[in-house]
Amino acid sequence: MKAITSRDNPFYKRLKALAGSTHQQKKSGHALLEGFHLTSAYLDVAGQPETCVVTDGALEHDEAQAIVARVDPACIVTLPDALFGQLSNVMNGVGLLFVVPRLVAPMPARVQTSCVVLDGVQDAGNVGSILRSAAAAGVRHVFCAPGTAYAWSSKVLRSGMGAHFLLEVHEDVEPQTLIERLDVPVAITDSHAAEALYDCDLAGPVAWVFGNEGAGVSEAWRAAVTHRLTIPQPGGMESLNVAAAAAVCLFEQCRQQRARYARATGEHRQ
Amino acid sequence: MKAITSRDNPFYKRLKALAGSTHQQKKSGHALLEGFHLTSAYLDVAGQPETCVVTDGALEHDEAQAIVARVDPACIVTLPDALFGQLSNVMNGVGLLFVVPRLVAPMPARVQTSCVVLDGVQDAGNVGSILRSAAAAGVRHVFCAPGTAYAWSSKVLRSGMGAHFLLEVHEDVEPQTLIERLDVPVAITDSHAAEALYDCDLAGPVAWVFGNEGAGVSEAWRAAVTHRLTIPQPGGMESLNVAAAAAVCLFEQCRQQRARYARATGEHRQ
Repeated sequence: MKAITSRDNPFYKRLKALAGSTHQQKKSGHALLEGFHLTSAYLDVAGQPETCVVTDGALEHDEAQAIVARVDPACIVTLPDALFGQLSNVMNGVGLLFVVPRLVAPMPARVQTSCVVLDGVQDAGNVGSILRSAAAAGVRHVFCAPGTAYAWSSKVLRSGMGAHFLLEVHEDVEPQTLIERLDVPVAITDSHAAEALYDCDLAGPVAWVFGNEGAGVSEAWRAAVTHRLTIPQPGGMESLNVAAAAAVCLFEQCRQQRARYARATGEHRQ
Repeated sequence: MKAITSRDNPFYKRLKALAGSTHQQKKSGHALLEGFHLTSAYLDVAGQPETCVVTDGALEHDEAQAIVARVDPACIVTLPDALFGQLSNVMNGVGLLFVVPRLVAPMPARVQTSCVVLDGVQDAGNVGSILRSAAAAGVRHVFCAPGTAYAWSSKVLRSGMGAHFLLEVHEDVEPQTLIERLDVPVAITDSHAAEALYDCDLAGPVAWVFGNEGAGVSEAWRAAVTHRLTIPQPGGMESLNVAAAAAVCLFEQCRQQRARYARATGEHRQ
């Protein structure tokens, strides 16, 4: 363990710059994982952090101690609570964070399984929620087109609740680069579409494209669409939040796959 | 139209206090609707605002003009752009807002149709997203238990995208007050439950209870549950974001209702 006590310490200065700026996080290729849930999920799935930063106060609590005990002591830096508190106003109060390298997955040569494309989804909370739904639905690859909120920002990490470590998240993927690698049909939701989500056979793999909160799916992706689907909405609203629509689509696919499996194995489930 | 040009104007001072504080909004019984979408949705569904505040700059744009033209001129107040800009840092840039009384619906004597209970959902974005999904699914009543984010705050209104005007949103509803009025079964999601969402007959009305992001559904509501349902998740995540889970549940119910209707009318849809 190394104790840092001065705000002039070079590592502290670098940490403060990272914590205050998504741009710095992106440029440096590092992400900050705050709190008990994200740090323990990282240890479970991805391994050791580059640095574990913990406050003197946090070290007195069982939950933080249990996590810190799993980290290589050479990677641990302690900070006085006051210095940690000055890192950024988005930091929450538990006094524990990991600095980790952003996980970068190589683009797959061909895409033959279900995947999710975020085509300019702007809101960090929406991106995190969709990553979480994708990981829960068993999707492996998520491709983020330019204009999508940066997936490894603190806010997306928080709302993703560890989904990042179960997925391969690809950033800044131009539509054409991905479209030519796809061996699966492309589906979008569109409130003007004729085919209902539930009437489309989704038991096979699908590339789901979810668009910008205001403008929807881009022209480049619209041109590549196999299935334009509508989610029938008996109420009066014209559309769902994009993360809600994504969950409905991904879990309708799970439902159909489960029903097909049940039929194949002779179980009587709808 | 009335032009306000001084920051010492009493209405401006009251507006500034409202814009800066959810507590003030709640106490006064007023809500602020910002931007083109919410204000035009209000005019479509609810009628005239108490006051329409518009900047001199916004009045030069077609979209703002079209909305202002629908408002009783006696309710319109113009502000210089600089004064509007000082209202609050959450205000967005279109220079148009309505001050409206919060819609208060009386508690129904009996609840015999599908409804949504927000049992301590904390995040304003989640509350707005669930209200939007509920309105899209054709739900009429949403009951917010104490501890739920205030539904008429600016942030919930923004993410609700007008759902508030299609719903009857009841605030501060104690569990027991509602439970004794319910004539419909109560359903919650629980990752440890045995019954899959898709295996439960949801074609009739259901009271859906969605709990706090961290703690889940409260003891009072757990004690009233008819259906504990799990959303089968083939991936490795243990849970979904609460607004994503709500969308999956509400639209699985819509799917089953649609399938039942199709069977009843002889259409061959699953």
